[in-house]
Amino acid sequence: MNMIKKLQPIPRGPSEHTVRDQIVEAAAEYFSRYGYTKTTVSDLAKEIGFSKAYIYKFFATKQEIGEVICSNTLNAILNAINEGMVDAPTASERFRRMFKAAVEASAQLFFEDRKLYDIAASAASEQWQSCIIYQDEIKKIILEIIREGRETGEFERKTPIDETVNAIYFVMQPYSNPLLLQHNLNLVEQAPMILSNLILRSLAP
Amino acid sequence: MNMIKKLQPIPRGPSEHTVRDQIVEAAAEYFSRYGYTKTTVSDLAKEIGFSKAYIYKFFATKQEIGEVICSNTLNAILNAINEGMVDAPTASERFRRMFKAAVEASAQLFFEDRKLYDIAASAASEQWQSCIIYQDEIKKIILEIIREGRETGEFERKTPIDETVNAIYFVMQPYSNPLLLQHNLNLVEQAPMILSNLILRSLAP
Repeated sequence: MNMIKKLQPIPRGPSEHTVRDQIVEAAAEYFSRYGYTKTTVSDLAKEIGFSKAYIYKFFATKQEIGEVICSNTLNAILNAINEGMVDAPTASERFRRMFKAAVEASAQLFFEDRKLYDIAASAASEQWQSCIIYQDEIKKIILEIIREGRETGEFERKTPIDETVNAIYFVMQPYSNPLLLQHNLNLVEQAPMILSNLILRSLAP
Repeated sequence: MNMIKKLQPIPRGPSEHTVRDQIVEAAAEYFSRYGYTKTTVSDLAKEIGFSKAYIYKFFATKQEIGEVICSNTLNAILNAINEGMVDAPTASERFRRMFKAAVEASAQLFFEDRKLYDIAASAASEQWQSCIIYQDEIKKIILEIIREGRETGEFERKTPIDETVNAIYFVMQPYSNPLLLQHNLNLVEQAPMILSNLILRSLAP
């Protein structure tokens, strides 16, 4: 829950949540239809029926609106991961479920439900705040699983834990970073499974 | 050596090698400056000072020229890999050198020496013949290393060998497929090293 708080940029202007939400909702709709990069705040204002000045009372830039959309999506992925891991009986199983949930939720939220790829691409290539926080959260989740497995004796303890976390993070990247995932959508089923097997073999004591 | 033969499409028209080479060389130069997708055969003809019809005597389509450029580049990468692996004392060491050479040669040939990214992107996303053959060659190299390590007792033998090869191939993809590598150029030093460590831990008997 507190992740959602952390990922949201500090709101600008009056805290009229319904108006902010309305703008974000309309923008997400518009971006997914016409693309994030091509859309201007003027286009959005016209679409929603607000003045440009009124939108600027809530968001300083188009990117600020984009950040909220991105945060919401990345939070939804983090929630899917956390839900996926609930009640996993072992660290190995928790790892498998985490990887699977991350890939499935990313593919679904960025490429199926809404064509938010364009915004995800800007966010990932320009390293928006929401992306950096998300990457850190993923690394933290990996770290917790490794720690758990090392404590229970499921995983080896010789490799420096930071190296283990980074290597696993690199292996997962092509299936969780939207810029890379777009080229791997045909592997969403197969790759996480056989890569989880490989990673778990590498973690064996 | 026979890889070079295999990767070249069957030549069309008279076997005037110097003219073919001249067209390919000029095209590679032109593509790297103006991009592959934007360039037409007319543009090329004008640049080289040949008629369009004359170029068509040697190559049926622009893609055929692109295939030769791509084959040459991918062959250069395969040669770099083979050279890198020479005299490796163990299968583990052979694996490390293979991964390192593949990444370094890909980064250099596609992104540094010549800006051939555009052609590589077309080739990879449209799965040109040269790419398919290259991917098979990489998998064969991985397979040979795994076989060697299993025979010498360096690597475990329980996992089906095809799964091992595919998993390793997936781990290497973001650093050898130019479409993915473009987003990972900042990791060319670090990632192959810690990913080789992870893979070798996974291969331990």
